[in-house]
Amino acid sequence: MTKSTLTLNCDMGESFGPWKMGCDDKVMPWIDMANIACGFHASDPHVMSQTIDLAIRHGVQVGAHPGYPDLQGFGRRSISYPTNELSEMLIYQIGALKALCESKNTEVSYVKPHGALYHDMMKDLAIFEAVVDAVSCFNVPLMILATSDSQAFFDIADKYEVPLLFEAFADRAYLGNGSLCPRSESGAVLTREEDIINQVRQIARYAKVTSKDGFVVPIEADTICVHGDNESSAGLIAKIRQALEE
Amino acid sequence: MTKSTLTLNCDMGESFGPWKMGCDDKVMPWIDMANIACGFHASDPHVMSQTIDLAIRHGVQVGAHPGYPDLQGFGRRSISYPTNELSEMLIYQIGALKALCESKNTEVSYVKPHGALYHDMMKDLAIFEAVVDAVSCFNVPLMILATSDSQAFFDIADKYEVPLLFEAFADRAYLGNGSLCPRSESGAVLTREEDIINQVRQIARYAKVTSKDGFVVPIEADTICVHGDNESSAGLIAKIRQALEE
Amino acid sequence: MTKSTLTLNCDMGESFGPWKMGCDDKVMPWIDMANIACGFHASDPHVMSQTIDLAIRHGVQVGAHPGYPDLQGFGRRSISYPTNELSEMLIYQIGALKALCESKNTEVSYVKPHGALYHDMMKDLAIFEAVVDAVSCFNVPLMILATSDSQAFFDIADKYEVPLLFEAFADRAYLGNGSLCPRSESGAVLTREEDIINQVRQIARYAKVTSKDGFVVPIEADTICVHGDNESSAGLIAKIRQALEE
Amino acid sequence: MTKSTLTLNCDMGESFGPWKMGCDDKVMPWIDMANIACGFHASDPHVMSQTIDLAIRHGVQVGAHPGYPDLQGFGRRSISYPTNELSEMLIYQIGALKALCESKNTEVSYVKPHGALYHDMMKDLAIFEAVVDAVSCFNVPLMILATSDSQAFFDIADKYEVPLLFEAFADRAYLGNGSLCPRSESGAVLTREEDIINQVRQIARYAKVTSKDGFVVPIEADTICVHGDNESSAGLIAKIRQALEE
Repeated sequence: MTKSTLTLNCDMGESFGPWKMGCDDKVMPWIDMANIACGFHASDPHVMSQTIDLAIRHGVQVGAHPGYPDLQGFGRRSISYPTNELSEMLIYQIGALKALCESKNTEVSYVKPHGALYHDMMKDLAIFEAVVDAVSCFNVPLMILATSDSQAFFDIADKYEVPLLFEAFADRAYLGNGSLCPRSESGAVLTREEDIINQVRQIARYAKVTSKDGFVVPIEADTICVHGDNESSAGLIAKIRQALEE
Repeated sequence: MTKSTLTLNCDMGESFGPWKMGCDDKVMPWIDMANIACGFHASDPHVMSQTIDLAIRHGVQVGAHPGYPDLQGFGRRSISYPTNELSEMLIYQIGALKALCESKNTEVSYVKPHGALYHDMMKDLAIFEAVVDAVSCFNVPLMILATSDSQAFFDIADKYEVPLLFEAFADRAYLGNGSLCPRSESGAVLTREEDIINQVRQIARYAKVTSKDGFVVPIEADTICVHGDNESSAGLIAKIRQALEE
Repeated sequence: MTKSTLTLNCDMGESFGPWKMGCDDKVMPWIDMANIACGFHASDPHVMSQTIDLAIRHGVQVGAHPGYPDLQGFGRRSISYPTNELSEMLIYQIGALKALCESKNTEVSYVKPHGALYHDMMKDLAIFEAVVDAVSCFNVPLMILATSDSQAFFDIADKYEVPLLFEAFADRAYLGNGSLCPRSESGAVLTREEDIINQVRQIARYAKVTSKDGFVVPIEADTICVHGDNESSAGLIAKIRQALEE
Repeated sequence: MTKSTLTLNCDMGESFGPWKMGCDDKVMPWIDMANIACGFHASDPHVMSQTIDLAIRHGVQVGAHPGYPDLQGFGRRSISYPTNELSEMLIYQIGALKALCESKNTEVSYVKPHGALYHDMMKDLAIFEAVVDAVSCFNVPLMILATSDSQAFFDIADKYEVPLLFEAFADRAYLGNGSLCPRSESGAVLTREEDIINQVRQIARYAKVTSKDGFVVPIEADTICVHGDNESSAGLIAKIRQALEE
């Protein structure tokens, strides 16, 4: 069996001013793609700059991780926008990160929206189209959730000639229809290391996940999202990497 | 006598959310260069986008007008930064405007810092160098104040291969040494239309200004800064334009 | 017929930093109650202070006008909060205004939520209860929309011993069920001066409005909300005042 | 020898939104006075509310800890204000915390400015007077740095009838003139536990500190400022408490 081509992506650069979040230096060695916050829901120009440096040091791709302008709510609360204004505020954020990348001779390689914006985009095609419209200015792919039916997303993305990247989650339980089990339900987040590693293996080898209620669901992912909130999760990422490389 | 090659530049895009500032639509037809605020001291992605559109419509060059992150103080209060962090926050702002420009197939043609940052840069060469460092990432000129001795600025700008543009002020009184009369002094701002037009003519034709205390001072400017705060100032800009084209 | 006891209330203190909004000095002489923004969706400590001074000068009651923390969106976009955190952020805002009032030997006399928060509170009793909970800390009434059935609001307000004040709108069209005609419909905002004055007279004398589709609807209001966005609207407020005093 | 009456004060409530700072729950049991950030340089209404609850639970006095409006800079950068506007923004912050306290039947017992504002107030009597003016609205003491000569501070505070509380630092080296050794100098912060405990004992028992260069300097303090940044510093606070109670 050949080595998996699945990449690992992780939200990075989520510190802000004097406040530290995450273990970026512990996580960066094990991932392929760093989703770097762009200053609206987390991060600031200095944190962005340092995180880009860290990604360069470890040969990790930089992705823009824009969100709603809500530091206190960490971009986890929806904010209603006319679609053109949504595109504009995304272009602003991605452009800011891109310029910082170019100042270091690297580039923004993809875009992945954050938090409530990510969820809103998956639920509302008008919002998805506004995101795609913004991303199309940068000639990079957009990363979205791998689901059982992505046709509607492809239709819009094709119109703007924006490639899509699909991500699956290492530590989230899935439902029988291939969607993520909502965080409000018990068991939504996998906590046993073994379960997480097994889910990653199943996605990597067989393009399938076993849903919470026992169904085997096809799921075609390009990349797996991992979380690096603390020392132990950073350790887990190393093991996920190992599982992928077996 | 040939038509002057002096351009007119004006701060634009200084509205924010629901708050309107300036008469951009009245001013844009008469100027050559629009210094567009980048969201830290004024403006937001939507205002920036609309202002770029207006500039395009009138064939006006777009300049980035970054400032300190202080909406309430409108960027008129100094905020102390390590020089690398100052560069980073400028790259962020300029990059954000640049991406919005590129989404409309135009570009950022120059950078002019705003308010306290502009003054700090003219007073402190370390700050000036941090600004130049940031601007050098964009391959565009930096606009600064025309003074009687610019050698120190040239030395730094040359090091980073950043061209300089020099601006004079239509409505500010000058001192005998070629510097601006501080706003705190009476008579610092010219208010009589005739005086303003005369000062512009003198700069355009003879590269000189007559200082408040009667000295004739050489001043080599590439561009003249005008202000478009209200309807009457917009009318004055039209007359300044006319004076330049005589 | 006795002089109406209906008061006029108006949103005031909505400037922010360098940005001016409204004609507070033109409006204040004609109103009874000034709803002063508290710095989250508009205003800042200095604007609040100046607006309190203006209210004192004209013998106008000061009301706290708290909103969602969203300057760019002017508090017109809903932001989701756990109810306890909503109460906390309202206490914060009202307390800030109260302290500024007390520093000038006046007081906060009532609370009226702003924008999206006002609408959310009228639509969602859990949000209404969180608002009431916050207001109960200040021993002042809460101003809400006069509708045809306020029982559910009374039930909650009574639990917290918070008096309610009901407001009607001078320039908004009503529906047959006593609710406001949504702004998205044509004719939602009355623009003819005569219609506005007539609606105010009808509310003041007969506690009724004639709905857009011709029904006469009972509406018991304590106060009428007027708008002072520009010179002409300030002039209209003077005429509404006159109509009330006939 | 009687038990010292010196209290321990510590900056608390410095988390913000999703970002945690400090070990408030570990520190609160050992201190007497909690300086709670007010949302401008750190904290938010929810963090403030939780920190007040924690203080109440441990019988700790709540102090307002207002700062410059600069989350990214954590209030450590000076921002220039007209003195009346400085007072207004302090009244805003203190009033916000006071209302949250009163909603829990407790009160703000004193005010201690934060960061750059603290330093500016000690260096510039006009700023000090603006702070005193704001604090005078709340009938509580103002906490400032204990220095060898406080006459100028007393003169102003007396004018506004504001009591002063003086604090010394457990872990900062002093100069021969009784001022703090600037952080930029090596040895400015004491790191050996023994040195810190000894300095506290010397202040508590003899109202003296031994300066970095060996002088014994009189220093009359009401309270000692401790820092609770991490687990080990929380442990040290417990030992300082023990030293005071010997």
